[in-house]
Amino acid sequence: MFKKILIANRGEIALRIIRTCKEMGIKTVAVYSTADEHSLHVKFADEAVCIGPAPSKDSYLKIPSILAAAEITNAEAIHPGYGFLAENAEFSRICAEHDLKFIGPSPQMINQMGDKATAKATMIKNKVPVVPGSDGVIDDLDEAKKIASDIGYPVIIKASAGGGGRGMRVVQDEDGFEKAFRTCRSEAETAFSNPAVYIEKFVVDPRHIEIQILGDQHGNVIHLGERECSLQRRHQKILEEAPSPVMTPEVREKMGTAAINAGKAIDYEGAGTVEFIVDKDLNFYFMEMNTRIQVEHPVTEEITGYDLVKEQILVAAGEKIDTKPLKLRGHSIECRINAEDPEHNFRPTAGTITSFNIPGGHSVRVDTHAYSGYRIPPNYDSMIAKLIVSAPSRDEAIMRMRRALEEFVIEGVKTTIPYHIQLMDDPNFQSGNFNTQYLEKSFTFTPDKN
Amino acid sequence: MFKKILIANRGEIALRIIRTCKEMGIKTVAVYSTADEHSLHVKFADEAVCIGPAPSKDSYLKIPSILAAAEITNAEAIHPGYGFLAENAEFSRICAEHDLKFIGPSPQMINQMGDKATAKATMIKNKVPVVPGSDGVIDDLDEAKKIASDIGYPVIIKASAGGGGRGMRVVQDEDGFEKAFRTCRSEAETAFSNPAVYIEKFVVDPRHIEIQILGDQHGNVIHLGERECSLQRRHQKILEEAPSPVMTPEVREKMGTAAINAGKAIDYEGAGTVEFIVDKDLNFYFMEMNTRIQVEHPVTEEITGYDLVKEQILVAAGEKIDTKPLKLRGHSIECRINAEDPEHNFRPTAGTITSFNIPGGHSVRVDTHAYSGYRIPPNYDSMIAKLIVSAPSRDEAIMRMRRALEEFVIEGVKTTIPYHIQLMDDPNFQSGNFNTQYLEKSFTFTPDKN
Repeated sequence: MFKKILIANRGEIALRIIRTCKEMGIKTVAVYSTADEHSLHVKFADEAVCIGPAPSKDSYLKIPSILAAAEITNAEAIHPGYGFLAENAEFSRICAEHDLKFIGPSPQMINQMGDKATAKATMIKNKVPVVPGSDGVIDDLDEAKKIASDIGYPVIIKASAGGGGRGMRVVQDEDGFEKAFRTCRSEAETAFSNPAVYIEKFVVDPRHIEIQILGDQHGNVIHLGERECSLQRRHQKILEEAPSPVMTPEVREKMGTAAINAGKAIDYEGAGTVEFIVDKDLNFYFMEMNTRIQVEHPVTEEITGYDLVKEQILVAAGEKIDTKPLKLRGHSIECRINAEDPEHNFRPTAGTITSFNIPGGHSVRVDTHAYSGYRIPPNYDSMIAKLIVSAPSRDEAIMRMRRALEEFVIEGVKTTIPYHIQLMDDPNFQSGNFNTQYLEKSFTFTPDKN
Repeated sequence: MFKKILIANRGEIALRIIRTCKEMGIKTVAVYSTADEHSLHVKFADEAVCIGPAPSKDSYLKIPSILAAAEITNAEAIHPGYGFLAENAEFSRICAEHDLKFIGPSPQMINQMGDKATAKATMIKNKVPVVPGSDGVIDDLDEAKKIASDIGYPVIIKASAGGGGRGMRVVQDEDGFEKAFRTCRSEAETAFSNPAVYIEKFVVDPRHIEIQILGDQHGNVIHLGERECSLQRRHQKILEEAPSPVMTPEVREKMGTAAINAGKAIDYEGAGTVEFIVDKDLNFYFMEMNTRIQVEHPVTEEITGYDLVKEQILVAAGEKIDTKPLKLRGHSIECRINAEDPEHNFRPTAGTITSFNIPGGHSVRVDTHAYSGYRIPPNYDSMIAKLIVSAPSRDEAIMRMRRALEEFVIEGVKTTIPYHIQLMDDPNFQSGNFNTQYLEKSFTFTPDKN
């Protein structure tokens, strides 16, 4: 087993990884930007190395500085967390060259999934259901138009190098197709230096449901059930839960098998997530695969008992995954607590937290790097805590989350806690009646209601 | 279901009960002494009524004040927590007289278990194994001596009205018997206004293992597995875990059945704990039954998924217990964090907590009424927090507890955290090789080692 791991990340996920390392008896090295000097991940690691100032390109994304930090501290492996360098094939390759184990997949695996069109082609070959659409990227307008007309409108045009909601455009009918096609290509060129786009059927009122998988170096791939991630704003997940309120054991089995096939198709190693778009009849289609740990991984940990970061480290060290049958217990919900003002269009509220009292008690988990007196740097994303609860049933989990949200006192900056409280009280949320459009189109936050 | 419950207690257990009530949609009334004015249980309840000053006899033990608080707030039920009035049959009776549901057993059940000799006789009648000893209380010295000699030395003389380590005396051989017998009787007279004593075989190097039971008003009694509680100082539990590291499924089944029989013998209603003394060969003997929720109940919650306070409330409202088969998951450990100085013979360290940062992350639970700035009143017991972890295996739970203890920052008062950290590192603790004498006789805390 590794003796020392460097964590190439910040915030709650850096702390999350440090905690598991401590529990495994592995020493940790934190890296940090000058803006993060007072972050808990710096305090809790055994060693910490400053790698430059904000913005991220001068520190958390600066590969030579991170490699140097690993070298001077004699770290044997690097955990990239999520974001930053987590899905950077080049970084994975350079780590290997420097004899540092990258805790995540190989450059080949990252590349195979990072390019959406390639990923889709791989899925088709391996019998993973995909949304009907073009066979890979399509450059010719007339051909594109014919495909759109064959699969039927509405369709969506997506940049092959895009992701996370960026570089896509829905087209309702043939009249709007040409303009959308040209715009999408030129935007993709600007944003990703790659104009390639592909076309898919646009699934109306879809849910976003994803399957957690784990693969080892010995060809084993298992799945750990699904996460319901349909509650999003601006393509950013706000609340996740496991299991999905609409899931059935039969569909879980089918989606799980599809996700395992996706992983086996690329000999996947590590923790990964296969994201599916799901229609009202629970038909599901491969959307993309994230080749890293995800923000919402704790809800899976709660219902399965696994420590996913520990599994990542064990797999990276060459251990075999335990392929015992999956057992799920109860229901888990995660609310992302962001330093954003829900009364003013969720504008970020960087500043100093003057009071920070986290909820406690039965089956309440808080993953956070913040504390009383913490100054939120304006340079990074606005998530300051993840509040996770679990309970035997979904109804009980909702009541527990509501209770925990009310207990969570954060003063000095506005947060999304009041928004989540109203979401807990929302009849559609309570009945599981929502899709990826729900928060933006149908749910209304009422200031001063709480 | 009840609309409003009054909590006749303070500290972490009051907060614990409030949390479950909130999750059940039940309003709560806190009562508090002037010394507890700034406690979290006062802040978190929907209403709070001051019932007098410290000491407890003028507030938390003052039945008329508590009844008056229930009356003015229209509470329908009273949860007594643990300690104070939780096992006071008179209080249970008076609540019933005032049409207030006492969330706990009837006065008869409390009395049947409160008197140790009666309890033992009931157990014998219901085939629950008991330590060989006198058939009830014994007043005559010569008869007592004969019994001691029949069951074999060492024996223990116990005050019938005693408990929690008070009013008992071990006798190694016949020479010391007479003096011990007389002293024990006169001490019992002084302490409990009742000189009655009984005699038992003294089990050498015993473990203390207890079974959690739940009974409803319909005659159902179930057990929820055992808790290992052998790690004690001055007969006070310091650390508890579930399952016991020495338990086998067969012995669990036997002990569970014995505990259910104990409960059924008195038509038990509510949450209760049947405590057993266990020898090296896992022979177990009924010790006593606690007719209330216990401090260490969270470790059972963690491995079973039950919310025991919720079960108490459901049962008090007349609901039936779900008698599905018991499923245990993983291992859970609780450390009691006391405001005591382990470097100076655990003397209490009342004062103001200047900094209080509780640990977080995967499967870490903290039940506490303390916070940064909290002044610990000198009037009550010294427990300021319960730190509970769970993990798939005992080894992993120990590592997680060690990590969480290191993360737990309490400044301003000395606490038992350094003691617990050393306990986590102790090879005997790690291998499960300990008994009720272990901490006091064999384990040595080393100041400044951490």
